[in-house]
Amino acid sequence: MLGFDEPSYREVMTKAGALRGRIEEVAREVTAEGYSHIFFIGSGGSYAVMFPYDDLFKQNSAIPSTCAIAAELVLTGNKSLGKGSIAIFSSLSGTTKETFEALEFCNARGVTTIALTGAEDSPIGRQATYALVNPANDENCSESIDIQLLLLTTALLNERGEYGSYPRLADTLEDMSDCLVATHEEAEDRSAAFAAKHKETSYHFCVGAGNLWGFTYNYSMCILEEMQWLHTTRVHGAEFFHGSLELIDRDTSILLIKGEDVSRPIMDRVQRFCEKYNESTTVIDTADYTLPGVPEEFRGIVAPIVIDAVTMRYTKHLEAVRDHSLSIRRYYKVVEY
Amino acid sequence: MLGFDEPSYREVMTKAGALRGRIEEVAREVTAEGYSHIFFIGSGGSYAVMFPYDDLFKQNSAIPSTCAIAAELVLTGNKSLGKGSIAIFSSLSGTTKETFEALEFCNARGVTTIALTGAEDSPIGRQATYALVNPANDENCSESIDIQLLLLTTALLNERGEYGSYPRLADTLEDMSDCLVATHEEAEDRSAAFAAKHKETSYHFCVGAGNLWGFTYNYSMCILEEMQWLHTTRVHGAEFFHGSLELIDRDTSILLIKGEDVSRPIMDRVQRFCEKYNESTTVIDTADYTLPGVPEEFRGIVAPIVIDAVTMRYTKHLEAVRDHSLSIRRYYKVVEY
Repeated sequence: MLGFDEPSYREVMTKAGALRGRIEEVAREVTAEGYSHIFFIGSGGSYAVMFPYDDLFKQNSAIPSTCAIAAELVLTGNKSLGKGSIAIFSSLSGTTKETFEALEFCNARGVTTIALTGAEDSPIGRQATYALVNPANDENCSESIDIQLLLLTTALLNERGEYGSYPRLADTLEDMSDCLVATHEEAEDRSAAFAAKHKETSYHFCVGAGNLWGFTYNYSMCILEEMQWLHTTRVHGAEFFHGSLELIDRDTSILLIKGEDVSRPIMDRVQRFCEKYNESTTVIDTADYTLPGVPEEFRGIVAPIVIDAVTMRYTKHLEAVRDHSLSIRRYYKVVEY
Repeated sequence: MLGFDEPSYREVMTKAGALRGRIEEVAREVTAEGYSHIFFIGSGGSYAVMFPYDDLFKQNSAIPSTCAIAAELVLTGNKSLGKGSIAIFSSLSGTTKETFEALEFCNARGVTTIALTGAEDSPIGRQATYALVNPANDENCSESIDIQLLLLTTALLNERGEYGSYPRLADTLEDMSDCLVATHEEAEDRSAAFAAKHKETSYHFCVGAGNLWGFTYNYSMCILEEMQWLHTTRVHGAEFFHGSLELIDRDTSILLIKGEDVSRPIMDRVQRFCEKYNESTTVIDTADYTLPGVPEEFRGIVAPIVIDAVTMRYTKHLEAVRDHSLSIRRYYKVVEY
């Protein structure tokens, strides 16, 4: 497969799952101590990755949940943030400035902080009440972080008796490497075809919903815009019929990101519309993948992990046919701002 | 002023403020009954308009607050939604299908529902526990709804002892018509200049933060995309440095929507960047307007109302120079979906 380092990928996935034991300890400890509000805090990609887990809490728990952008939270504050709340962060490098400032802001207010990071000995790794560490790289960190966030949130829910399927789900998440490598393989040809077709396309209309809305936001903003300098718009599937759709003509490239959770009917409706009025719709659907080893009951909840793997193929092929390296930046780490 | 019906505008603003008494009664009643969670629910523009008021609760109240998209909420549910929670809706026509379904979903679960609508005798007007009615039209409903939502949320906070400035703020909101007509007038020349400059511009990069992020989302999606068929991207100011900025070159049209709340430093930072690396940045800043009759202490909190007035001028001038009517649609009310 194009640009795929299988041994290192497998290692990172296995290590993400191997954090299960530690995650369960952390979940037990913070639950024993008690908390009345949970926060998911991030910046950019590490903000968007939190959406499904914030939603999981909202859908399953009596504990209220809030998802916040780090740089804004430290200015606005939040009355529910303080002693008796817990906050979850993620930063691969452990150095993201705004995320670190939000972590310190929380620590100073007596919040119990839990950070997912690739670097234990980093500002974020050192300052969090609990650090969950899995060294990864830009090519495999998304799946790794999603595995850990799903383990962590369902473990927390399980401790409160709000997610009884936890032990079976955790068994599944403990080693996703075979499943995810198979997913990469299954996505390879479709991705190559997509990239070939869209070599010259300069604008993509991105739609997603449910537990893949965060991913859609991220793919539009951090991959297509940031790493490929392509124009996009990103629209939640439930917002699609309330505005942006008017832009669409026969030839607009539309990317529909479909998962398998309860929000699927929203995307079905969007897809029906697109198939009627557009001739350039690409449906990237986790339901098209076999997911070996994943019980049917968990296909919906693991979709954020699956879509990370699938779209890494799309990204790699786009990079190749467009001859635009994913690492080129005009500004980030190039100029001061 | 271009396309401005002053008498009807003044009437709608005055009537919005005149709802103060009724809003205070509603706030007293629901507070006396007690509630433990507040929801802000909408679709498209009526979803985005809720963001500042959800934020006001998060920043000022011990009561947790959630903002939700109507069509998604009815599929996913929310564990905090039920008896003991209140939910706020808005729909000018009172017929928005998804919003109505969410209202019924809430009613069926014992939620106390409060709806802002232009039509008392509409499905939403009839089914809400409390309806707050002010007939308006597409040209003036944004300011009217913002006035009512600000009165309602601060009245609710005040009843809980969480917003002591309420009486003075409500005095200000009771009649905003002079202030808002002056704002329209002050915005007229700038708007005409913007429209003339951008007659041929096909892409705008929109950034906003704090209590103007919802507006920015709405302006990008429901005005520029839906009503002008212009390509845009919309980015929260605190997310600006985490992705989309890489798209920007010297000539990219950037719209910065600046308010006067605590999040202003976020937009200051974005503006400094844009002034350095871009030569086509338009700053639409509520601080540039005199706001006669608005005490200094409330300039920040009324910014969503002010920006509605300011940008209606921009929209009207864009419509005129681009010869693209705001009412043309390819799909909405044209085809079934």
